[in-house]
Amino acid sequence: MKMNSLKNIFRPTMPMSKNILFKPDELISNSQKLMLELGLIRQSANGLYHLLPLAQRSLDKLICIINKNMMDIGAQKISMPVLIQSSLWKKSGRLSKNMEDLYIVKDRKNKEFLLSPTHEEVVTNLFSSDPKTYKQLPLMLYQIGTKFRDEIRPKLGIIRSREFLMKDLYSFDKDEVNAVDTYNKICQAYENIFKQIGVKFIKVEGSSGMMGGSQSHEFHYPSEVGDDTLLLCNNCGFGMNKEVSSDLIKCLKCSSTNIECTKAIEVGHTFLLGTFYSKALSAKYLDSDGTSKPPYMGSYGLGVSRIIGASVECLSTQEIIQWPKSLSPFTVCIIPAKEGSIEERISENNLFTLYNNLTEIFGEDIVVDDRTHMTIGKRFIEAKKLGFPFVIIVGKKVTESPSLYELYKSSTKKSEHFEFGSLIDILKKQCNQQNT
Amino acid sequence: MKMNSLKNIFRPTMPMSKNILFKPDELISNSQKLMLELGLIRQSANGLYHLLPLAQRSLDKLICIINKNMMDIGAQKISMPVLIQSSLWKKSGRLSKNMEDLYIVKDRKNKEFLLSPTHEEVVTNLFSSDPKTYKQLPLMLYQIGTKFRDEIRPKLGIIRSREFLMKDLYSFDKDEVNAVDTYNKICQAYENIFKQIGVKFIKVEGSSGMMGGSQSHEFHYPSEVGDDTLLLCNNCGFGMNKEVSSDLIKCLKCSSTNIECTKAIEVGHTFLLGTFYSKALSAKYLDSDGTSKPPYMGSYGLGVSRIIGASVECLSTQEIIQWPKSLSPFTVCIIPAKEGSIEERISENNLFTLYNNLTEIFGEDIVVDDRTHMTIGKRFIEAKKLGFPFVIIVGKKVTESPSLYELYKSSTKKSEHFEFGSLIDILKKQCNQQNT
Repeated sequence: MKMNSLKNIFRPTMPMSKNILFKPDELISNSQKLMLELGLIRQSANGLYHLLPLAQRSLDKLICIINKNMMDIGAQKISMPVLIQSSLWKKSGRLSKNMEDLYIVKDRKNKEFLLSPTHEEVVTNLFSSDPKTYKQLPLMLYQIGTKFRDEIRPKLGIIRSREFLMKDLYSFDKDEVNAVDTYNKICQAYENIFKQIGVKFIKVEGSSGMMGGSQSHEFHYPSEVGDDTLLLCNNCGFGMNKEVSSDLIKCLKCSSTNIECTKAIEVGHTFLLGTFYSKALSAKYLDSDGTSKPPYMGSYGLGVSRIIGASVECLSTQEIIQWPKSLSPFTVCIIPAKEGSIEERISENNLFTLYNNLTEIFGEDIVVDDRTHMTIGKRFIEAKKLGFPFVIIVGKKVTESPSLYELYKSSTKKSEHFEFGSLIDILKKQCNQQNT
Repeated sequence: MKMNSLKNIFRPTMPMSKNILFKPDELISNSQKLMLELGLIRQSANGLYHLLPLAQRSLDKLICIINKNMMDIGAQKISMPVLIQSSLWKKSGRLSKNMEDLYIVKDRKNKEFLLSPTHEEVVTNLFSSDPKTYKQLPLMLYQIGTKFRDEIRPKLGIIRSREFLMKDLYSFDKDEVNAVDTYNKICQAYENIFKQIGVKFIKVEGSSGMMGGSQSHEFHYPSEVGDDTLLLCNNCGFGMNKEVSSDLIKCLKCSSTNIECTKAIEVGHTFLLGTFYSKALSAKYLDSDGTSKPPYMGSYGLGVSRIIGASVECLSTQEIIQWPKSLSPFTVCIIPAKEGSIEERISENNLFTLYNNLTEIFGEDIVVDDRTHMTIGKRFIEAKKLGFPFVIIVGKKVTESPSLYELYKSSTKKSEHFEFGSLIDILKKQCNQQNT
């Protein structure tokens, strides 16, 4: 049987101090420090990061969750090029506004392109190239792709980097009423995604900012290292970004003055755009009365790589990563006995049976810490640091009668001993809970 | 039950002539024409393409096949940034050689970056940042990501575009013997991938070209529109790229003079790089004798989006797409009766049962052409054009006794009628064949 081996996983670990690309006065957050030191990410240049195998596994799990939820609401996946003709942004008037954050590149014929920060103009142009009838709306198109922002001060690792993975969705409707329906449906799907991820999130009224829209919401992970400040009403739960109304003293919904400030990391943003882009780029659909009209649009972003960093940021301590179960690179880590120990052979036999049985529950989602030149204790410390939801130690106690396995849960930070049958039952139950 | 609906799929169809971005004298290949006209891809600018939902589904299937095969050989998935510091390419000396094809961008501090054409320097630098011991080798790292090449003459749609999806893998070994082992193992995995795709391919000796390697192989799809010319020995099957030896009159392996020329599209390329990059970028591993040595490297590319275009190119006619079953956007297309027809209600009832039963076999891989305002005949013509491996017509004959379904197979271009039970049995069998 082939087992996932922690020994073989590329995970360059190194103390922060040796990462020469860091400035000494830079704010280092827990997730950034832990993900760098434990070899989940690595800086390739200022604000640019490699996602290494463990982080990549986490990312791929998130992408699965997103795709599943998009399929459920009938959104369709596409890929639009990273290179965007800057002429398109001239039409919308956005080029002049955001020059500083944009990467601009010229091709061999001196034609100018942007490295995609977002795709409103492009998707509107795509829509306009083949006019739809009102019967074919709403249309929801999304992609998961690389985006670029030339940040003055990239920080917090993959939470605010200059290149990042984003999921962007665009909707087209025949009128405002339908557009609002679609908007609400998509916001609901985003809530489902965040619920399935399992990290506590806050949805607030957003600023429509550079998008020029009429309605907007933001999804946030509350965190002290976040760049945003949220104003939350303790009475009715209503919230908004401080950017929207910095001098808010009364809740807009219930008039309560019991308002709290919270720092947060923005992980999603939705915009009801109206007809701004469809008018600017002459996109039209054919209405039931035979006339051509600009469609009502919406734009919906999720910071995919950012969600990975921000999830770790919110749940972890200074010393120990805690993953939401949904995004942990592996759900189970098994630690067999040290090589040369008395229990080595029995541990090894039990390991095979255990791995086999767990595969039926968790599929490929199990890893063995086969660095058996290290003591169980040392590997256990590292497994806790890496934040696997379940750690199983196949140590001295498996040689006893009855044979016992130690199960550590990262959610409770506690260990208990179980016989084989009970261990499998408990994990089966945990797996079912997670999937419902 | 929610069914995949062809009506709702974003598929802007339009005659080539209306795609204003084309030059009138440009070579248009079958795949390019069909994929554009049937709404699978769309040009966003010269040499830049959107992948629309049907093509995206095909791409996602290919990515699954690749990931599976990489897992089987223990290659690890990562993501390296698109932006590459040009200083890294100065160290390897490659910057001066390939300036014309490179997109170069400067950040706000005037620092120069390349848009990744390939990642040898970057991955070597990543490796060197955390020296391994000989016990930790071989190491195989891969990614699936966007690559850029500023082609003078992009052509053939997504077969030769300026931005494309590539799968690139890099290997590190302690010495040449081990490196050759790893190289062969990876070449074998690539052969498996191409076998699973199912389009006839040719593996030949390649030119190591700009990579500066010692050994190299290429994977090709034979096609008249291809840019490469292969020399193939009809006696022993040995082949090489004409670039390697343009004046070959005798086979290098069996000395036969029975040599044939074939035009082809390169879809994969492997290089045994040796220590060129590890020396240039000072990457080292710790050998068993306690000394630090440069690892032996390999580099292995697959043109992911290109494989989609080239597969269609190889199998299709001028009028009709033919997919390899493994990559068809949907495996089954069901056509129910026209609205208002006598058989409409019975057809609809049968459709639900059929869809349900097929879901158990094909999962989400079924689409219903629910544009019931169109005749069955018109939709059937289009289903054939789109190349779905199986088309099932739930038409007038389902109202007869026994109730009959028409099954069309794109592989044989023939239709037959079956009762429900036999239809399901046949498709079950086909599905099992495909998966073995």
